[in-house]
Amino acid sequence: MPETKTLASYIVSSAAADIPKDVMHEAKRALLNFVGCAVGGSREPAVETAIGALLPFSGKPAAGVLARPERFDPLYASVINGITGHVFEYDDTTPMNYIHPTPPVASALFAYASANRTAGKDFLHAFIMGFEAESRIGNAVYPAHYNAGWHITATAGVFGSAAAVGKLLNLSTQEMIWAMGLAATQASGIREMFGSMAKSFHAGHAARNGYLSAVLAKSGFTAGEHAIEGARGFAPVLAAEYDLSKITAQLGKDFQIRYNTYKPYPSGIVVHPTIDGCIDIYRDYRPAPESIKAVRVRVAPLVLDLCNKRELRQGLDSKYSIYHAAAIGLVRGRAGLQEFTDEAANDPVLKQIRERVVPEGDPAITEDQSHIEVELTNGEKITRFVRESLGNLRRPLSDQQLEEKFRDQAVPRLGAERVEKVIQLCWSLDELNDVNQIVSATCP
Amino acid sequence: MPETKTLASYIVSSAAADIPKDVMHEAKRALLNFVGCAVGGSREPAVETAIGALLPFSGKPAAGVLARPERFDPLYASVINGITGHVFEYDDTTPMNYIHPTPPVASALFAYASANRTAGKDFLHAFIMGFEAESRIGNAVYPAHYNAGWHITATAGVFGSAAAVGKLLNLSTQEMIWAMGLAATQASGIREMFGSMAKSFHAGHAARNGYLSAVLAKSGFTAGEHAIEGARGFAPVLAAEYDLSKITAQLGKDFQIRYNTYKPYPSGIVVHPTIDGCIDIYRDYRPAPESIKAVRVRVAPLVLDLCNKRELRQGLDSKYSIYHAAAIGLVRGRAGLQEFTDEAANDPVLKQIRERVVPEGDPAITEDQSHIEVELTNGEKITRFVRESLGNLRRPLSDQQLEEKFRDQAVPRLGAERVEKVIQLCWSLDELNDVNQIVSATCP
Repeated sequence: MPETKTLASYIVSSAAADIPKDVMHEAKRALLNFVGCAVGGSREPAVETAIGALLPFSGKPAAGVLARPERFDPLYASVINGITGHVFEYDDTTPMNYIHPTPPVASALFAYASANRTAGKDFLHAFIMGFEAESRIGNAVYPAHYNAGWHITATAGVFGSAAAVGKLLNLSTQEMIWAMGLAATQASGIREMFGSMAKSFHAGHAARNGYLSAVLAKSGFTAGEHAIEGARGFAPVLAAEYDLSKITAQLGKDFQIRYNTYKPYPSGIVVHPTIDGCIDIYRDYRPAPESIKAVRVRVAPLVLDLCNKRELRQGLDSKYSIYHAAAIGLVRGRAGLQEFTDEAANDPVLKQIRERVVPEGDPAITEDQSHIEVELTNGEKITRFVRESLGNLRRPLSDQQLEEKFRDQAVPRLGAERVEKVIQLCWSLDELNDVNQIVSATCP
Repeated sequence: MPETKTLASYIVSSAAADIPKDVMHEAKRALLNFVGCAVGGSREPAVETAIGALLPFSGKPAAGVLARPERFDPLYASVINGITGHVFEYDDTTPMNYIHPTPPVASALFAYASANRTAGKDFLHAFIMGFEAESRIGNAVYPAHYNAGWHITATAGVFGSAAAVGKLLNLSTQEMIWAMGLAATQASGIREMFGSMAKSFHAGHAARNGYLSAVLAKSGFTAGEHAIEGARGFAPVLAAEYDLSKITAQLGKDFQIRYNTYKPYPSGIVVHPTIDGCIDIYRDYRPAPESIKAVRVRVAPLVLDLCNKRELRQGLDSKYSIYHAAAIGLVRGRAGLQEFTDEAANDPVLKQIRERVVPEGDPAITEDQSHIEVELTNGEKITRFVRESLGNLRRPLSDQQLEEKFRDQAVPRLGAERVEKVIQLCWSLDELNDVNQIVSATCP
């Protein structure tokens, strides 16, 4: 059976009772993390600008958006949720394919559920289906697809959103195949946009287009039926090399959400090991900034590909700077939200240290590792090798740490009391009769 | 100067007075042809289905759509105009890049002009700018991009729509650069969708996304500034080979609309030479269908890549069938709208002839040529070589023939009197104070 059909048919026939408990719990963790990021990112300029531009085009304002007072039709609500959820770069990552998997899927689902009464159990199930579709298609085309310059969060995410919303719309297998086709033909988003507002738009665009795909398919709007594997389908057109067997292997048994990870720092994930190592050095030595002569960092070559910005004008840029990652760790010993503001980007001390950082790509170092050597003005050298960084699959954030991350982002926006309520709603998602309770609880 | 900036800056600074008269006239021809196609296609199932699915999501219904009574916000109006204008496959083609150039650009412009009072002169100028952007970007990545499986009408069209709407929105150069970035990162549409409703959606999707790009850019939503030429930009990511000099060479002098062509038949353009030759044979010999033993057709290899469908269930499929192309020419001696209906696809006589057609790809034959050999049951052989087909650049349709094509499509929908009025409005576009007159005149 062609892969597109196998996947569509699995999503359509999956029952909530088939989902293992640990998978359900991981889905709640992913959604808690996402909602926290959306609250944290909800007043970023990208969000404000998009809301201003899109509000005049919105249909009937049937849906609330996370952490904002405005209301939109559910398709535009998907766009806004995607921007707020992704803009902080604090969202989750599946390291096997570098997708930020939750924003495209959950943005559409929260928009849907805000406009259409949805039980938490169905919501979680649909989310897991979307996560599965997006991850497996991503796995099939990674790494060639990503290396070519595609923003895989967007290009795979659109399938996830289509599958998830399609599940809630009770699509037939035929309709789900069309939804996959309509998603495939809207798959877009290039890495040239990294560092601009367009990057966070990708998550919203994917969410909205996947939602639209499901709606069109439900109405009988047809599409090519070999969306992924066809000769002119997603995989051959958007990836020089791909492995379609990853779409169907162990489907319904090996849930991809088990491989999800959560960032402890709001920056590009590939600079995390460097932040970790530099924070460690700070804790152990507290070197005075003026005593730092040079910082030599050996990292996976991909890090230089993604995060080689030394000159920073704004907070957004600083999230993708291996120079800044080392500087904040060494100077401030932490990497919270306030280390990635415009102010931090322009902090003269951090700037000075950034100028002393010399990164080097080393194929022997994985993307989860970093080798750091700090040379002091007195000739002393401090070295640190980070074998695996906090938040990765072998050092996962605990539920407690995820809650702490949520509070860090959300308390300044919603206040402590409201934040505890939202956290509790997320953990009890499977018992909610109406998921819109979560959306409402985040609205200021 | 980087290509994206050069192009953006040209579009922003171009004045209507800089456009040569022949270019203005060709723009009217393109728009007349487009409006006729939209009227002709306005009741296709793809249109009805999309309208049913999208109407509940529309914002304030400020815009009319061509040839339909429904009203939408201008972004959804762009989608619907794109579907109606492209669904008949009767639209224009620039043979240097196989783009159907007018639907993505004009769909957005008519939607914009229906909601925002726009003078015909400005409309024509913006249309020419959009045509230029789309064509030049398409030229730069053709043929590698198209051969890889991209539907170039969609992927290049989104730039055209962004440039055209951006021109009417008076974007600054900086904003136009962002609009190009937002267009680049939404560029999508794969050829696996050919033969389904999703294909015509591509034109509407490109129109809408380009329009959205211009709106977002106008609001200050930022994007990567090397959308086309950047290392992770449109050209490197979506084309294995490309030539960026085609974007800027003779900009403002060599207008791409001069290379536009108009189909005499509502089918995939690459089967036109075969239709031509078979109509010729019909005119000269009128072979009885039962006397036709075999039809050997030698065509460019691309034809078999695009149009190798022998088994047809519906009219839509028949537009991309080299078998059907030969059959209708030989049996009916014409290739009007009624030769591509569901009825024609299932006509038993045409089916019989289709089964006798043997196509062969021959690299010595251009896409504008066809060599036909009809073998009769009495052993006689009739051969015909079509050197260049009707409607191509060396045998262009006259203004009169374009009007006839318009009438063929539009009279059954609007009646003769209204049709003459719309034709007249299109020819006097540069004098109109309000282009919405055209949209209104096509609404039943």
